[in-house]
Amino acid sequence: MIDIQSGRATSGFAIESVGVTGLRYPLVARDDVTGEEQATLATWRMAVALPADKRGTHMSRFVAALEARGRRPLGLTEHWHFAEHLTQLLGAERADIETEFTWFRLVKAPVTGQAAQLESKIGYRAVTGASPQKTLRVQVAAKALCPCSKAVSDRGAHNQRSDIEVQIDYEPAATQPAMSSLLALLEQSASSPIYPLLKRDDEKYVTEAAYDNPVFVEDIVRNAATQLVQLPGISAFQIQAINRESIHAHDCYARIVWSRG
Amino acid sequence: MIDIQSGRATSGFAIESVGVTGLRYPLVARDDVTGEEQATLATWRMAVALPADKRGTHMSRFVAALEARGRRPLGLTEHWHFAEHLTQLLGAERADIETEFTWFRLVKAPVTGQAAQLESKIGYRAVTGASPQKTLRVQVAAKALCPCSKAVSDRGAHNQRSDIEVQIDYEPAATQPAMSSLLALLEQSASSPIYPLLKRDDEKYVTEAAYDNPVFVEDIVRNAATQLVQLPGISAFQIQAINRESIHAHDCYARIVWSRG
Amino acid sequence: MIDIQSGRATSGFAIESVGVTGLRYPLVARDDVTGEEQATLATWRMAVALPADKRGTHMSRFVAALEARGRRPLGLTEHWHFAEHLTQLLGAERADIETEFTWFRLVKAPVTGQAAQLESKIGYRAVTGASPQKTLRVQVAAKALCPCSKAVSDRGAHNQRSDIEVQIDYEPAATQPAMSSLLALLEQSASSPIYPLLKRDDEKYVTEAAYDNPVFVEDIVRNAATQLVQLPGISAFQIQAINRESIHAHDCYARIVWSRG
Amino acid sequence: MIDIQSGRATSGFAIESVGVTGLRYPLVARDDVTGEEQATLATWRMAVALPADKRGTHMSRFVAALEARGRRPLGLTEHWHFAEHLTQLLGAERADIETEFTWFRLVKAPVTGQAAQLESKIGYRAVTGASPQKTLRVQVAAKALCPCSKAVSDRGAHNQRSDIEVQIDYEPAATQPAMSSLLALLEQSASSPIYPLLKRDDEKYVTEAAYDNPVFVEDIVRNAATQLVQLPGISAFQIQAINRESIHAHDCYARIVWSRG
Repeated sequence: MIDIQSGRATSGFAIESVGVTGLRYPLVARDDVTGEEQATLATWRMAVALPADKRGTHMSRFVAALEARGRRPLGLTEHWHFAEHLTQLLGAERADIETEFTWFRLVKAPVTGQAAQLESKIGYRAVTGASPQKTLRVQVAAKALCPCSKAVSDRGAHNQRSDIEVQIDYEPAATQPAMSSLLALLEQSASSPIYPLLKRDDEKYVTEAAYDNPVFVEDIVRNAATQLVQLPGISAFQIQAINRESIHAHDCYARIVWSRG
Repeated sequence: MIDIQSGRATSGFAIESVGVTGLRYPLVARDDVTGEEQATLATWRMAVALPADKRGTHMSRFVAALEARGRRPLGLTEHWHFAEHLTQLLGAERADIETEFTWFRLVKAPVTGQAAQLESKIGYRAVTGASPQKTLRVQVAAKALCPCSKAVSDRGAHNQRSDIEVQIDYEPAATQPAMSSLLALLEQSASSPIYPLLKRDDEKYVTEAAYDNPVFVEDIVRNAATQLVQLPGISAFQIQAINRESIHAHDCYARIVWSRG
Repeated sequence: MIDIQSGRATSGFAIESVGVTGLRYPLVARDDVTGEEQATLATWRMAVALPADKRGTHMSRFVAALEARGRRPLGLTEHWHFAEHLTQLLGAERADIETEFTWFRLVKAPVTGQAAQLESKIGYRAVTGASPQKTLRVQVAAKALCPCSKAVSDRGAHNQRSDIEVQIDYEPAATQPAMSSLLALLEQSASSPIYPLLKRDDEKYVTEAAYDNPVFVEDIVRNAATQLVQLPGISAFQIQAINRESIHAHDCYARIVWSRG
Repeated sequence: MIDIQSGRATSGFAIESVGVTGLRYPLVARDDVTGEEQATLATWRMAVALPADKRGTHMSRFVAALEARGRRPLGLTEHWHFAEHLTQLLGAERADIETEFTWFRLVKAPVTGQAAQLESKIGYRAVTGASPQKTLRVQVAAKALCPCSKAVSDRGAHNQRSDIEVQIDYEPAATQPAMSSLLALLEQSASSPIYPLLKRDDEKYVTEAAYDNPVFVEDIVRNAATQLVQLPGISAFQIQAINRESIHAHDCYARIVWSRG
């Protein structure tokens, strides 16, 4: 049967990335430090570079490789190995493989100690080839209370949910940090963590704690950056916070971009 | 050329709605009370009922009719006439026509008076036929400050953006109310309106006003309902508020469903 | 500590639904017929009715109840029991509990037999009280090839991904059907199922099978309806298909609404 | 009144971007070549760089500046001037200003000539400062018919809607190209344009034209790249196509990244 994808291309343009996207697949995610594993749902983007003279890639191999790896737990290191495997399997010089999934922590309310699951989003990205990249993405929500609103008002202060996102590039040999410590670092950069379950005593605690710790969106990313640079094995990071302003219909955001050296 | 859509169907099932959806089109929206017109962007869903013995409808006629009406301003009454026109044009017993667009108001900050445009979403729905329905949808954001958090805490109170949505069914002969008064009614059901532009003096005002007027999500929909029932020409409504909780990753919501008699 | 939620309300309006929404939680979903269980990710909406004289509900109890049930597998029947439990727990006359999750099947390519996971969306809804409702929602993608395009063209025919959604109301005592048979019923209503993984021989098969079985969006919902009415225990259903038209920027859709007697 | 934003920051981290996002505003968009103007709806992201020693920016100035410019038409050149104005207004070394809006063309069906509006998305981005960037973003849908499916099948070929996106960096002095010619360039890279309105004769034409011109997702971006490099004033571009596969639940994509010299 004719194989058109393997034909020659003549435009002279190499393809930077070609592959599949928006592919949902069951995943057992793994925290490489603690060994904790969670069955969850992942969304994949899997692509390779294609030289100028090759017409097409073999899209079905991405899905076949995902199925072949079965339910083996996936941490950042294992994800890197999977990207290297795909690079070979597709006969490519570079692969760019990204997965994103929901990760849960059992979080206790600060006073009553009542616990429930709190979601966050974790992503792994691996780019193989001449300029390798090993990236961890973390997204978590926290509470931001406005210092200006507090300072100028006789009572109260506006506050809102803030979505904090970080992308961390790791040295090739570095291992993934404990999810929970990284998530805590981000939450502590804001006015207060948020919680899945609060009783009245907890609500009092969170309200007052946030009021006592006001932060601008600029402060959140600076607080996080100050902690992130102290983590081992990090070569670069981007940290962004988006405040879902409770006094506006639009959002405010701030971003720090940092790289070692 | 063969016309397959006009063929006979044999399953015995009538189609409740068949048509196009997700169709974006330029729109001049009109406030029937004030006469104000705005050039904006609409998303349309246009469908008709299809009897059990007819195989298909003529999808292209929906788009042709939209183009044919050109830039004539569209208020709720004109929307109803357009639905009647489509009912005839498609040879249907019932049409179900819905459009949604962004509508702006020039809103002044409460102290400095600085003004900017504030968005809201407006929708019209017209169902023709034996059980006619003429519905106005309005969606606007406001600020909600939690009464429990205020009452139990020594300082501060958690607050958040609240998305308030109402669907109002009008008597056939009723005209659309002034957009601005309906939007104001909804905003005043919450702790405070939100604003596109606030200077420090305004921020103090809004912060304190919201602190002085705490509402649960249940209160918002009850406050709105109390006002809505007094409006003329309304046969039924649904009012819903969704608080984007600043202490949780999930939202809270409340809904009231009301009909006359 | 003061309990404001338990205070009295005076507006005279009962709240139809009040609760939490957009709450993501780990879930072990269960197929009641086959007994198959899958660890997946659910999004919950959980609400109760609130009488006119009660000011607020106790939002934290929804999350606490979800955590308390732990990882017990959830089929449609168990979901109903959970809704009854929440009705009692919140002291309500009616609860309205909905969960939606991604469900996977191992699907084989039609010629080579190569298998991979294919996603679909499943939802359960339970409304307790005077007008109980027990609803299964299923959403799956399939392939639709246009009969008109085939009939009028000398070669080829336009085709597209079609998203098929059904909501089935079950008699109180009915059990959930096997997911896989319901999903297959929906896929067979279109021109062809879609697949997670196809080699060239499979692609030939699917292309020709779809070309030999053209369907309008109206045909898809009628084909499905013809099969659905024959299933036991169904009191009502809504079936909808949305074709992501490959010749337009907008979509086409059709819906059948059916109830027994 | 105290001005906390103007206070000093001590973390040592400069903020790469701080500002507002998700801000919807009415816009009169302008095609700099043809002079055509359209009233539409824009979504803005507006940010500036903040030095390490400054605590906060003045968010309200972004919205005030947007309101102050009123309904003056906005082309890519005027957008650049607006970014320069904001840079000054915020006292920043660099601003990063992005707007995205829906742009319509009146498109005629290929045989009957029946015309209707067809949407596309246009975006402008301007980054001022030491490394200035002037970027035009264009997103349009087209039809892609699979060459492999056509070659291996005895009849038919799978095809789908393809979303084509390009980001073009312009030399500082370059003017925006005519929207319509750029959109046509992208559409002609696929198997066929799509249309807002097709009668049966048109549907035959489009079906056969697409069948006669099969393209992989890789071909689409190469076809577009071959044309784009010939346009004057372009310093770099990224072109991406995403095929909404009609045989899969996931999408396929390809991307070319190019820069002059």
